[in-house]
Amino acid sequence: MAKAQKIITFGEVLLRLSPAENRKLSQAKSLDFFFGGTEMNVGASLAVMGESVKHITAVSNDIVGDAALSSMLQYGLDVSSVQQVDHPIGQYLLEVGSGMRSSQIAYNRLNGSFANIQPDQINWNFEFEDASLFHWTGITPAISENAYQALKAALISANAKGLDITADPAYRSNLWQYGRNGQEVLKELVSLSTIFIGGVNEINEILGTSFGLDRDGFIEASKYLMTECPNIKQVFDKIRTGLSASWQKIYGRAFVDNTYLETDELEITQVIDRIGTGDAYAAGLIYGLHHLNAEKALNFANAACALKHTILGDVNLVSVAEITEVMQGNIGGRIKR
Amino acid sequence: MAKAQKIITFGEVLLRLSPAENRKLSQAKSLDFFFGGTEMNVGASLAVMGESVKHITAVSNDIVGDAALSSMLQYGLDVSSVQQVDHPIGQYLLEVGSGMRSSQIAYNRLNGSFANIQPDQINWNFEFEDASLFHWTGITPAISENAYQALKAALISANAKGLDITADPAYRSNLWQYGRNGQEVLKELVSLSTIFIGGVNEINEILGTSFGLDRDGFIEASKYLMTECPNIKQVFDKIRTGLSASWQKIYGRAFVDNTYLETDELEITQVIDRIGTGDAYAAGLIYGLHHLNAEKALNFANAACALKHTILGDVNLVSVAEITEVMQGNIGGRIKR
Amino acid sequence: MAKAQKIITFGEVLLRLSPAENRKLSQAKSLDFFFGGTEMNVGASLAVMGESVKHITAVSNDIVGDAALSSMLQYGLDVSSVQQVDHPIGQYLLEVGSGMRSSQIAYNRLNGSFANIQPDQINWNFEFEDASLFHWTGITPAISENAYQALKAALISANAKGLDITADPAYRSNLWQYGRNGQEVLKELVSLSTIFIGGVNEINEILGTSFGLDRDGFIEASKYLMTECPNIKQVFDKIRTGLSASWQKIYGRAFVDNTYLETDELEITQVIDRIGTGDAYAAGLIYGLHHLNAEKALNFANAACALKHTILGDVNLVSVAEITEVMQGNIGGRIKR
Amino acid sequence: MAKAQKIITFGEVLLRLSPAENRKLSQAKSLDFFFGGTEMNVGASLAVMGESVKHITAVSNDIVGDAALSSMLQYGLDVSSVQQVDHPIGQYLLEVGSGMRSSQIAYNRLNGSFANIQPDQINWNFEFEDASLFHWTGITPAISENAYQALKAALISANAKGLDITADPAYRSNLWQYGRNGQEVLKELVSLSTIFIGGVNEINEILGTSFGLDRDGFIEASKYLMTECPNIKQVFDKIRTGLSASWQKIYGRAFVDNTYLETDELEITQVIDRIGTGDAYAAGLIYGLHHLNAEKALNFANAACALKHTILGDVNLVSVAEITEVMQGNIGGRIKR
Amino acid sequence: MAKAQKIITFGEVLLRLSPAENRKLSQAKSLDFFFGGTEMNVGASLAVMGESVKHITAVSNDIVGDAALSSMLQYGLDVSSVQQVDHPIGQYLLEVGSGMRSSQIAYNRLNGSFANIQPDQINWNFEFEDASLFHWTGITPAISENAYQALKAALISANAKGLDITADPAYRSNLWQYGRNGQEVLKELVSLSTIFIGGVNEINEILGTSFGLDRDGFIEASKYLMTECPNIKQVFDKIRTGLSASWQKIYGRAFVDNTYLETDELEITQVIDRIGTGDAYAAGLIYGLHHLNAEKALNFANAACALKHTILGDVNLVSVAEITEVMQGNIGGRIKR
Amino acid sequence: MAKAQKIITFGEVLLRLSPAENRKLSQAKSLDFFFGGTEMNVGASLAVMGESVKHITAVSNDIVGDAALSSMLQYGLDVSSVQQVDHPIGQYLLEVGSGMRSSQIAYNRLNGSFANIQPDQINWNFEFEDASLFHWTGITPAISENAYQALKAALISANAKGLDITADPAYRSNLWQYGRNGQEVLKELVSLSTIFIGGVNEINEILGTSFGLDRDGFIEASKYLMTECPNIKQVFDKIRTGLSASWQKIYGRAFVDNTYLETDELEITQVIDRIGTGDAYAAGLIYGLHHLNAEKALNFANAACALKHTILGDVNLVSVAEITEVMQGNIGGRIKR
Repeated sequence: MAKAQKIITFGEVLLRLSPAENRKLSQAKSLDFFFGGTEMNVGASLAVMGESVKHITAVSNDIVGDAALSSMLQYGLDVSSVQQVDHPIGQYLLEVGSGMRSSQIAYNRLNGSFANIQPDQINWNFEFEDASLFHWTGITPAISENAYQALKAALISANAKGLDITADPAYRSNLWQYGRNGQEVLKELVSLSTIFIGGVNEINEILGTSFGLDRDGFIEASKYLMTECPNIKQVFDKIRTGLSASWQKIYGRAFVDNTYLETDELEITQVIDRIGTGDAYAAGLIYGLHHLNAEKALNFANAACALKHTILGDVNLVSVAEITEVMQGNIGGRIKR
Repeated sequence: MAKAQKIITFGEVLLRLSPAENRKLSQAKSLDFFFGGTEMNVGASLAVMGESVKHITAVSNDIVGDAALSSMLQYGLDVSSVQQVDHPIGQYLLEVGSGMRSSQIAYNRLNGSFANIQPDQINWNFEFEDASLFHWTGITPAISENAYQALKAALISANAKGLDITADPAYRSNLWQYGRNGQEVLKELVSLSTIFIGGVNEINEILGTSFGLDRDGFIEASKYLMTECPNIKQVFDKIRTGLSASWQKIYGRAFVDNTYLETDELEITQVIDRIGTGDAYAAGLIYGLHHLNAEKALNFANAACALKHTILGDVNLVSVAEITEVMQGNIGGRIKR
Repeated sequence: MAKAQKIITFGEVLLRLSPAENRKLSQAKSLDFFFGGTEMNVGASLAVMGESVKHITAVSNDIVGDAALSSMLQYGLDVSSVQQVDHPIGQYLLEVGSGMRSSQIAYNRLNGSFANIQPDQINWNFEFEDASLFHWTGITPAISENAYQALKAALISANAKGLDITADPAYRSNLWQYGRNGQEVLKELVSLSTIFIGGVNEINEILGTSFGLDRDGFIEASKYLMTECPNIKQVFDKIRTGLSASWQKIYGRAFVDNTYLETDELEITQVIDRIGTGDAYAAGLIYGLHHLNAEKALNFANAACALKHTILGDVNLVSVAEITEVMQGNIGGRIKR
Repeated sequence: MAKAQKIITFGEVLLRLSPAENRKLSQAKSLDFFFGGTEMNVGASLAVMGESVKHITAVSNDIVGDAALSSMLQYGLDVSSVQQVDHPIGQYLLEVGSGMRSSQIAYNRLNGSFANIQPDQINWNFEFEDASLFHWTGITPAISENAYQALKAALISANAKGLDITADPAYRSNLWQYGRNGQEVLKELVSLSTIFIGGVNEINEILGTSFGLDRDGFIEASKYLMTECPNIKQVFDKIRTGLSASWQKIYGRAFVDNTYLETDELEITQVIDRIGTGDAYAAGLIYGLHHLNAEKALNFANAACALKHTILGDVNLVSVAEITEVMQGNIGGRIKR
Repeated sequence: MAKAQKIITFGEVLLRLSPAENRKLSQAKSLDFFFGGTEMNVGASLAVMGESVKHITAVSNDIVGDAALSSMLQYGLDVSSVQQVDHPIGQYLLEVGSGMRSSQIAYNRLNGSFANIQPDQINWNFEFEDASLFHWTGITPAISENAYQALKAALISANAKGLDITADPAYRSNLWQYGRNGQEVLKELVSLSTIFIGGVNEINEILGTSFGLDRDGFIEASKYLMTECPNIKQVFDKIRTGLSASWQKIYGRAFVDNTYLETDELEITQVIDRIGTGDAYAAGLIYGLHHLNAEKALNFANAACALKHTILGDVNLVSVAEITEVMQGNIGGRIKR
Repeated sequence: MAKAQKIITFGEVLLRLSPAENRKLSQAKSLDFFFGGTEMNVGASLAVMGESVKHITAVSNDIVGDAALSSMLQYGLDVSSVQQVDHPIGQYLLEVGSGMRSSQIAYNRLNGSFANIQPDQINWNFEFEDASLFHWTGITPAISENAYQALKAALISANAKGLDITADPAYRSNLWQYGRNGQEVLKELVSLSTIFIGGVNEINEILGTSFGLDRDGFIEASKYLMTECPNIKQVFDKIRTGLSASWQKIYGRAFVDNTYLETDELEITQVIDRIGTGDAYAAGLIYGLHHLNAEKALNFANAACALKHTILGDVNLVSVAEITEVMQGNIGGRIKR
């Protein structure tokens, strides 16, 4: 197996709060908490798998920020470049749904520590020294001008250094309140990336197209994306079918080397936690692309994503061994003694 | 949308105790608790939906009764007519089953505060001032002579005022220990009501008939009920199929304006709490009949009932928006950010 | 006993989060939560004592705001004038100290829903109809210009209506970030009030004086305050001695009708929760001034404050009977069967 | 050390429910529970110390009664003579006080399973075969006529068999609702006993006297009791001083063989649970009288009582070794590795 | 129904620790615990069903061993022959899987108290006085030479007394570290037994054969086993199909009196706890063989096994009534009031 | 302030399990857990204070060992030299006492992963590169021959490199079961150290002397130790007075540069956790000796030790700022907002 790669992730760390036992908030007296955030989730999952990962972010300069650092350390992340600023850490409160009842989230992040990150205090050239991959998502540029500027600087530096750059351009309309146009920004930043983690919906949103959701639409959209953003060399997507909040199906597809790839569908009949399953896919993919070929990487990513549905919290804590077993079809749940 | 209606509910409030995690009582060290009771559940659910609801009951004159009042206040109920009497509050202890293991309940209610309610201290004419609907169930007259007398007085007053009166004539044979004949009493009280929430089983029990359980039997039974109890203008029922304690199916049917109505079946594959699902149906129906037509009200009631299976405790805490979504077929459990 | 008075309180409602068992945040997996906030605490405590209290505030327009409303309802507060705005609710995270280890708080409130309250949507003349007392604290004008404007409008209206106005001018230097001078504002607002809940430190801060902390200093400071702010007719203070975070002593003193009053000292050897003890004092005082003479009111306030140290959460939930017993010297902790 | 004695205890088993963390009931979402009851507490404590103890009672014939049996088995009690009857088990709900805030209890026991025990189904002559001691308290005859009749039959049989009979004649005025005069009954039953566990207050209540509470009053009262109830050969008492609900002092005194005995005072500065401390004293005494002389037995009882303040729940779970250490003055709390 | 039989079980008692909510250990702050162990699980389940069961084992001579005894007492086991030795009790830490994520176990038992049991301190002839059945499993002889010697002595004595002997020869390769050959030992011990609880896999492992897993293979294997180990008169097996860790199917088959028996398949869609389901099958079988015919016993065993999947912990706590209902096909999960 | 020093700690990491709420194990259903161990506690506390610390140990090669690594990462320790071996991790089960009830511990460590550490797989010369201090305790050589050999090799290497070496020679008689003489070994190892953290009792145990416990005895003992073990240049001790398990007093004393030093006594009236308070002292001392003079270091150590009594778990999580405040006399427990 190839030696551990050095990966840089960049993005907000949020305090997640949620009542246990699928309770409504008004029924609870305590809240479980985790520190999460899409890019940190990817980094932490990669660290758990054994990669060497540094996460760059800004947390609050108080007991909550200290606890966030402690949590990142526990995942095995390098936190030596985390800023502590005089703004509260962002957070979200999650009521976990069940069956036909949806989960609901209330955010409090737009005036938080990451929104107030100091772009000029990050030395991207220094950070990317020896690094092989940089991962970003569309959440970051949606939070604030500071966050956008920091990310753009990162991408320019990473390009110059020749890193692989994975882009997960999730577009969330209820962010983007600081003035910039999400579509334009995302297109600009995707153009600075090399691997696209997303599908037809994301491409349509960014490029203003209307490709169909089926296999052919996906292939066409991928080709068009590679034309518009010629740095993009690979497109990896996952297709989720939600029978209910508790019962989900998932498979992966990709367009790589002019070839369409697709995995078997995995079914999760008792979802424990759906948050972070996309991040688990991204982490699985990044791990897989380093250690496996593209087809196996896609399967590894899909298995990682499926397994994350059984893990509480934002971060996928399963091991490479556990993912590999599912990837090989061992899903009967035998006890490992 | 029509303005909030003023609703009066009347019935026992019970302290519910149950071990968490589907534990047997002998395995537990603590018990989750909720205040519930079929009529209060209906009222509380309606208050959560935004209706103006007063619940009339008697609770104990001690710290438990105080906590029951506090809980009702939290649901938004008007508790200004609740009596506090020198008898302990009724309660039940619930071992929550799972799969093929049934839930088990041990009651302690027959000498409690509600059984000792003082009928002559309730001024029904005052209570029904401005009210539009009164809801009762067959549990109340089964508890004690006092409870029966209070309910009968309420129905006479409500009739005189021309209120809508919803009757949920649940018959439980292990109650009715104070001397009266349940069948006779229920027929008497249903005759004083205008909307029947029940089906063939309930009609057969009350009227001593033996209609079949199929669609035709339901129509015939409804017609016969309307003949025997001519105040009854509408019959609303729900049909439950239990695959296990954790997996249930439910649909609604009704006989209204000489027309048979039926909803699609909704499936709950991971029941969190089955207690109070009938009350959720009744509350959904009462809300629906005020704000929607009968067919939509039936669908609203069925969706409310289905959603209650995902809520811990006796009371359905879902919002009108959540019910409406399920009613419209959105059951895939997408996260609401 | 005099009939319940109608009281209006106004101020931020915060989500309070804290690890149980005096844990550090990094050691916890869940957080107990309560809704609190100094003015709401006063109102809720008064409602628990049986007064009729309306609390005016702005909470978030999401599931957290809904839960805040539910919590206020449970305390018995009238929430019909609460605004729901599109900003997250303020919050604080509390690490509960013990012994010589101090409690630590991290706030997140300065961009929250209350900071964004809409002053012009509060009709103070309508709110003060039939009301007898308005309570405010120095936290409110420190949060934002909006909060300051709303409070100032309230005080002008309350003065015009001739209400009693209790001012608890707590000065916190780490608030006041929106531009105004705390000292000036507080002096202006105290001038619009009739009862001052504070002592030498508060007077020195507001008026820029340097009176001594002893009895004579307190009397001189009170007199000077009444000269500078002639609406103020009474001054009530409490003196706390902290042996440790877990062991506190407290007594009350006052300057009323040109007379100095002082209570015995009460000792709390095992503090359960120190947050909200000042609010318990204020609520006890307001209750006492309505139902008792000034000297007894001071004793009632001090007993309420002492008892609050034994109650978890922000709000003092003890009853008038419990306070009265402590006020009468029954502190031996006999079990009440 | 003497071999284990066979002891019979008789009395109600109650389900105890209480919020954790000294919470008020309205603040809690779950309740810790224990099965307790003064006579069972004594028996269970003796079983934990290694004695052979059978407890006779009636519990409910449902899942709660089953759990009560399971709990008694865990303490090591012989439950082979426990009745299961069709009445709910008695219970009490306890809000645990702290400092100057008293604990509060709400009972629900007067129509429960023990109140409905069937006296004629207990064969006391069989039960007392091989037994050496019978223990009862004044709670039992206060609950119902059935309970009184069963206890009286027990005492007559135990007398005939020549057993030691320990009487703890606690008088609670809020019981005794079924018609009999508590004072008369208790005097009758104490007359059938040999060891009195109580002091001046209890003697004054039973005999209608007014002896003083000091040492001389205690001696005089004891002598008078032995005159009025000549079967009584020994009197053992404990004196509690409550500085607060959390801080208590306790010492024992006795009148035995015409001699006054007194222990040192033990101080408990952080009471964890005060319920059952009297029962711990009684159990310690019964154990001590079998294995030690009267003076040491008194010290053992006082140490057992003091240690019970550090144990959650109704039953004293400390070992003979732990009690012996405290009795020998080792109270510094060294860790035992 | 036949009177309770006296049963002896023998084997290790383990402390089981597991994070709640399917958490990974690194995510948890507390661990649920139970005392379990395959043979004790069988005995405890039989005691819960009303049989008279003594469990023989060795536990630690410390607070953990004391708690193990307390737990066994609670199940109703006779613990009078349990040894307490100066070695820590064995334990296992269980991460409970979900869906396609397997449960994982870390053991710590090979140097524990049971491994150090003193064979010569067990008087098997005394223990088997009046007993009718002895149950053992293949775990015991795999732990240590001491455990093997004690078991072999038991089997020789039980044979001499003519007891029924149930053998559950589970073979676990990661045990057997003390030197003996598992295959040889198990064959020797099965030869001393009368009822074989196992199937083709177990027979193949012990006898070194390679029978097929289908019905015919099972019949052939059973016949061959009865030839090799002629004391064996009956073979009972169960067939599990794992769709995932949370979704399992199970049916029983047997070869008795030269006849093949098979039950319907039961499906568990939401597994709460899979540990101890085989022990529940064995206990159900032993109960069934005493009270029912072989075919019904097999059905009873399968129903008991299925129900155990809904019970947390190692021991099946369901009642004979609950098992009988499932055996009769009532699996819809109706609430029992 | 001086820059962070690089520190090496070496010793067993234990899984600590304890019931919450001072419960007895038999009363609990779950156990709080922490990873601790005297040397790791010192290292973790130093890492929390900002030092650069590597901890060397051996943990199990299973999910528990993984979690131990995760926990060490969270404290900020460098775990790159931790071995994972095929033996279970050591552990202890703690019943937390209260008042006059002592805490009790049951250990399971003597056959665990650390006892089986591979001495030849540690390259001490590599580990001590750039390091300035090595810390060890008397627990390590008491566990096994392997542990002793590894420690001795470390001390020889550290001496050669000229590191400061802190020795905390705690002698526990119930360890030392593998054959060596504790007294001899400890004297040998102390002779290889430079700073002695212990007092008269430890010196008497190691050197077989009988110095008195008072100040003069301490000075004489220190001098004699420096004669016998001439590498030792400084002696630091703390004196604890236990009023009960919940109420402790502590002060430090030292003999440095031929001078006697002594701190004020600090009093902890509500001990939350006494485990690890000695380790907190050692960590405070090591930090203090690097950043302060000897007298201040002693005060810093004593304050750290006192504060640890307020922190749950084995590791002192307080910050340098918190310790400094207590060291400066601020012990009134003001809330830090």
